[in-house]
Amino acid sequence: MLEAFFEPTSVAVIGASTDPDKLGHAVLKNLVDGGYADRGQVYPINPTATEILGYPAYPSVLEVPDPIDLAVVVIPYKFVPAVLRECGEKDTPAVIVISAGFREAGREGLERELELVDIAREYDIRLIGPNCLGVIDTFTPLNASFSAGTPPAGPMGFMSQSGALGTAILDWAQAGRLGLSKFISLGNKADVTEIDLLEVMVEDVDTRVILMYIEELANGQAFIETARRAARQKPVVAIKSGVTQSGARAVSSHTGSLAGSEQAYQAGFRQASVLRAESMESLFDMALAFGYQPLLQGNRIAIITNAGGPGILATDALEHAGMSLSRFEVETIHELEQRLPDAASAANPVDVLGDARADRYRFALEAVAGDPNVDGIMVVLTPQAMTEIEATAGAVVALASKTDKPVLACFMGEAQVEAGIDILTESGVPNYPFPERAARAFQAMADYRTARARPEPEFVEFDVDRPAVQDVFDGVRSEGRVTIGDAEARAILVAYDMQIPKSELAETPKQAVEVAREIGYPVVLKIASPDILHKTDVGGVKVGLQNAEDVRDAFELMTYRAQRYLPDARLWGCLVQEMVPSGGLEVLVGMNRDPQFGPLVTFGLGGIYVETLKDVTFRIAPFSPEEAEAMLDEIRARALLDGVRGEPPADKEAIVDALLRIGQLVQDFPEIVELDINPLVVYPENQGAIAIDMRLVLTQETEPGDSK
Amino acid sequence: MLEAFFEPTSVAVIGASTDPDKLGHAVLKNLVDGGYADRGQVYPINPTATEILGYPAYPSVLEVPDPIDLAVVVIPYKFVPAVLRECGEKDTPAVIVISAGFREAGREGLERELELVDIAREYDIRLIGPNCLGVIDTFTPLNASFSAGTPPAGPMGFMSQSGALGTAILDWAQAGRLGLSKFISLGNKADVTEIDLLEVMVEDVDTRVILMYIEELANGQAFIETARRAARQKPVVAIKSGVTQSGARAVSSHTGSLAGSEQAYQAGFRQASVLRAESMESLFDMALAFGYQPLLQGNRIAIITNAGGPGILATDALEHAGMSLSRFEVETIHELEQRLPDAASAANPVDVLGDARADRYRFALEAVAGDPNVDGIMVVLTPQAMTEIEATAGAVVALASKTDKPVLACFMGEAQVEAGIDILTESGVPNYPFPERAARAFQAMADYRTARARPEPEFVEFDVDRPAVQDVFDGVRSEGRVTIGDAEARAILVAYDMQIPKSELAETPKQAVEVAREIGYPVVLKIASPDILHKTDVGGVKVGLQNAEDVRDAFELMTYRAQRYLPDARLWGCLVQEMVPSGGLEVLVGMNRDPQFGPLVTFGLGGIYVETLKDVTFRIAPFSPEEAEAMLDEIRARALLDGVRGEPPADKEAIVDALLRIGQLVQDFPEIVELDINPLVVYPENQGAIAIDMRLVLTQETEPGDSK
Repeated sequence: MLEAFFEPTSVAVIGASTDPDKLGHAVLKNLVDGGYADRGQVYPINPTATEILGYPAYPSVLEVPDPIDLAVVVIPYKFVPAVLRECGEKDTPAVIVISAGFREAGREGLERELELVDIAREYDIRLIGPNCLGVIDTFTPLNASFSAGTPPAGPMGFMSQSGALGTAILDWAQAGRLGLSKFISLGNKADVTEIDLLEVMVEDVDTRVILMYIEELANGQAFIETARRAARQKPVVAIKSGVTQSGARAVSSHTGSLAGSEQAYQAGFRQASVLRAESMESLFDMALAFGYQPLLQGNRIAIITNAGGPGILATDALEHAGMSLSRFEVETIHELEQRLPDAASAANPVDVLGDARADRYRFALEAVAGDPNVDGIMVVLTPQAMTEIEATAGAVVALASKTDKPVLACFMGEAQVEAGIDILTESGVPNYPFPERAARAFQAMADYRTARARPEPEFVEFDVDRPAVQDVFDGVRSEGRVTIGDAEARAILVAYDMQIPKSELAETPKQAVEVAREIGYPVVLKIASPDILHKTDVGGVKVGLQNAEDVRDAFELMTYRAQRYLPDARLWGCLVQEMVPSGGLEVLVGMNRDPQFGPLVTFGLGGIYVETLKDVTFRIAPFSPEEAEAMLDEIRARALLDGVRGEPPADKEAIVDALLRIGQLVQDFPEIVELDINPLVVYPENQGAIAIDMRLVLTQETEPGDSK
Repeated sequence: MLEAFFEPTSVAVIGASTDPDKLGHAVLKNLVDGGYADRGQVYPINPTATEILGYPAYPSVLEVPDPIDLAVVVIPYKFVPAVLRECGEKDTPAVIVISAGFREAGREGLERELELVDIAREYDIRLIGPNCLGVIDTFTPLNASFSAGTPPAGPMGFMSQSGALGTAILDWAQAGRLGLSKFISLGNKADVTEIDLLEVMVEDVDTRVILMYIEELANGQAFIETARRAARQKPVVAIKSGVTQSGARAVSSHTGSLAGSEQAYQAGFRQASVLRAESMESLFDMALAFGYQPLLQGNRIAIITNAGGPGILATDALEHAGMSLSRFEVETIHELEQRLPDAASAANPVDVLGDARADRYRFALEAVAGDPNVDGIMVVLTPQAMTEIEATAGAVVALASKTDKPVLACFMGEAQVEAGIDILTESGVPNYPFPERAARAFQAMADYRTARARPEPEFVEFDVDRPAVQDVFDGVRSEGRVTIGDAEARAILVAYDMQIPKSELAETPKQAVEVAREIGYPVVLKIASPDILHKTDVGGVKVGLQNAEDVRDAFELMTYRAQRYLPDARLWGCLVQEMVPSGGLEVLVGMNRDPQFGPLVTFGLGGIYVETLKDVTFRIAPFSPEEAEAMLDEIRARALLDGVRGEPPADKEAIVDALLRIGQLVQDFPEIVELDINPLVVYPENQGAIAIDMRLVLTQETEPGDSK
């Protein structure tokens, strides 16, 4: 559906100019110089000129006798709506709006942009931009942008929300650092977004790796779904900048204070199997490895080096990256020992010594490439007196062309090694100036392998009592409240089949004593009020009450205190609750709704682990049982779940079950904006977990159709 | 004392060769081509040749009619001792041994190396190497190495334990990436070490930043002291590779299992104020900033950019690095608003927009450089249609030359920005291809500022009872033991004035009851045996004993169990101990002796924080009270020390006191190889701390003179 952007049969440049200083000229010139004019029709559109760069010009697309497949708009913003309508009347399916002056220019600009979207919808036009650099497809070839020159063709598909970063990337590409298949400057993303382009690039046979520069995603859920499908086919690497602050929104839960936009992106990228680059440099380093080398099938790397120091740096970096050094077969070591000098190291890292010429490298490369314990090879070279730099590069290239294992090079230095690096790069063996960067590229390859090995998520759906929850919400809404705790929260937990302590509301001390006798001593007493969310802060909780006198005393003291310190709070009485068995581990399960990604579910150990150490992890709902299990492994204090100091292992299945049920609850009811179960007390294996307390916050206003 | 290595009046090349393929020829040629021959005398030494490269050759240094200040030895290893003696007889003060075949070649090689050291000592010769690349001083100029060519002069002093890495570094330097003042390949460090060279470089006016590649330090304590003094004068940046495993040594304490060589280097570098580079790339990035720009005086950075995306990346990276963005004065913002276009951002990061020419950059640079809230400036440029790349580079260079604030550039791209980058580099404004790398360079500058602002450490010495400790050790030794706990450990704690619980040994149940009455109930009973270090593991500890019956029962049960399960253990009876007040926080104070750095003192919270979360920090003794305080701030769970959930703050002074006293103890007695106080129970502020239990391990054999 978006082919017209990349392989159009004809292109009109609306705003094509005879003035070489104008962008409208640059776009036309790129179409011609980039080779498109040899393949399709080019129509400059200009109100006065009769011909530009040798092509007949027309005053409007409507005057062009033939159909127009793609229009590139480079005119002042106020004329854009009118020409977009003309494109519509011409049945042009694809329009790139380069012109600025829209959403990025404030409120009026936003209105102009929405007008464009309306016109595009009306005429069934797909639109890239506005406020962008344009589109390049090097294989068509099509350069429908105002870039300075056209980058070389290659395996990397790049989409960027920043046009300026795009210019830098194109410059690197033209300097021979990398080759691009498609380049799309997304601009304001009024219509076409990353999600559409992911679908295009995953189908594109010329694209081996998809690269993204993202500042903000509009629809996180759709992104996760599309990117996850894409990542099954080819690696998707993204750099995300500009983590926005959660800002002034009042936060009333632990989860709310822990979960920000950064956490949501981190969880979202992981669930989407998108590899996140920490920096531009790392993005390119990863892109080179994925673009030009076969995928890594394991995480055991062999290093071949002509110097000890860099060999150690490479080893450190690989181990730091969680990779391992291959342990060679005995035969490999024998082979190496026979052919290398005595002082050489035949174990990994293989040190071919400072006086190694190309033949020694060649032999070592072949020996380790044939070893079944080697998944990838790093070749380190320092320029020494005897080193044959170009011949060694030739040996590396020859080996890389016949093995299906990735080979990354690290020829260190600059002037002396330049010719060798050129040989490597031209034949698709990426060179990194430092061993640490080659190690990180291998790490990214291993991460991709892990992500792709994860099974397709299968979401479970529990049989729950949604109407009961809806009833609670309706009741709360009818009183004009948005916060929920106590009995109301317990009703919700019961509706979603989660275990809670036995409890009952008592309105008088006498009633409390009766309830306590039914439940059985010892009991807990909690003040019950819709206006007191943080009960412990006002002395509203007493535990371990052993008898009727304890219960009566606690009831009276707590109601007295509440009346005295919070005279406006409505008091419903006290909740009498079963003392849950000791020996459980307190954990937190929570949710906070992220503006981009939706329900962000949190897990962590309770108490100081959450409050002080912020030892928590996140997933976007929906997530599979495997993802919920993975959460348990991601916290630093995970050993506590397995049992330390003689404690038995905790019932992890019960935690996974709680995470999944809460994930379902917050999907079923989008009006829940925050939720905390704190604590969920988890007992030893097969003994379950009890949700002691839950608090929820609803959206401020009921929106019809919010809930299923 | 080492001047002869860098500014010799005459140089002999022993092993100078007429064969251009020989290293002995390369060294002589470098001396000549590097410019030394114009300044001092050059003497080729060769048994047969009469002249080499136009210089008269001599069969031996003894035949040279004039004195020889520096000799460079490039002959097979077996002849090296003899010529070293000849140098001694010639009164040559400095010798560089390039020849290999020593320590690195195994046991026989090590013996040869020790022979060299003996000869050097005998004749008062200082020796660099063996097994090295040589020495370069670009300002003398002297190139006494077999490097390929001579690097340009510049502000960086580099010493490397790896010759091969050295060759790569020289190649980068020759490609114009950096300029060197001195370059020393250390080789096997038989005599001259990093410590000697730190002293040379700190006095060297041509060296502005000291760079080190370290694989291993022989004397960590001397390194800390020398490097700390050096770092007061100029930045010292090191990359440390090859973290060695502690290996097969049995570890019997928590501290031992937590503290490895990596932890010792980390602590040592921090105490030495040495900045540690994570990678070679980062070493060079830091070196460029320190070498060519003034020091940073605060951590508030201004960013000027012509593109939003890279501006955001730069902001993210600075914040991630713990720096802050400058908040401009109102006047600065007004000035910027008046001179920049409406759509530009006058706040930080300053966005001069994509169509900015050099004048707009120039104006913005001057405005922010004049703002008192700006400590450093990052200039980001992407090559866009209107961008004047070279003129903008000129504006950056002009500003940098008149401000005393560091200016770092980030001109992104490659082919298009190349000429601009050359202008920057030639005038000493470092350029980084990506904003994240410029941000990390600023971070290193801020780290250096912080390190240099730390006061000179003042070590305290407590008045303690050393003879009492010596008595305990003597007693333990006389029984052939090396482990110490219980009463013996308590005697040590008392000798070093640390608080311990009241306690007394009881040999019988009856005696235990008497002691308990004296101490006052409740009490703790612990099995007392020199052979049982981990008492809880054998049920050898009972707490909370309330009365005589409890004490009697516990005594009999514990001795029965010990006799039954550990029939060979010597039993002294049981220790009756005061139950220390509840409400304390358990912390660990420990020590493990590192082979390079000596006593490595550990601090962390007790229990699962140490065992599971490994949340601990380290210092090499001696350390100052300020360093001990800093340790308390370095653990992740530090908030617990300040009191969370309504707990009062802990007595931090008492912890600092304990750390300092233990630091003194392990310095006073080098025969202590491991030590754990676990737990030290810390009470609220001003209420002190009690050491509940201590275990020590001594060296296997008494070495006379080990203790003071």
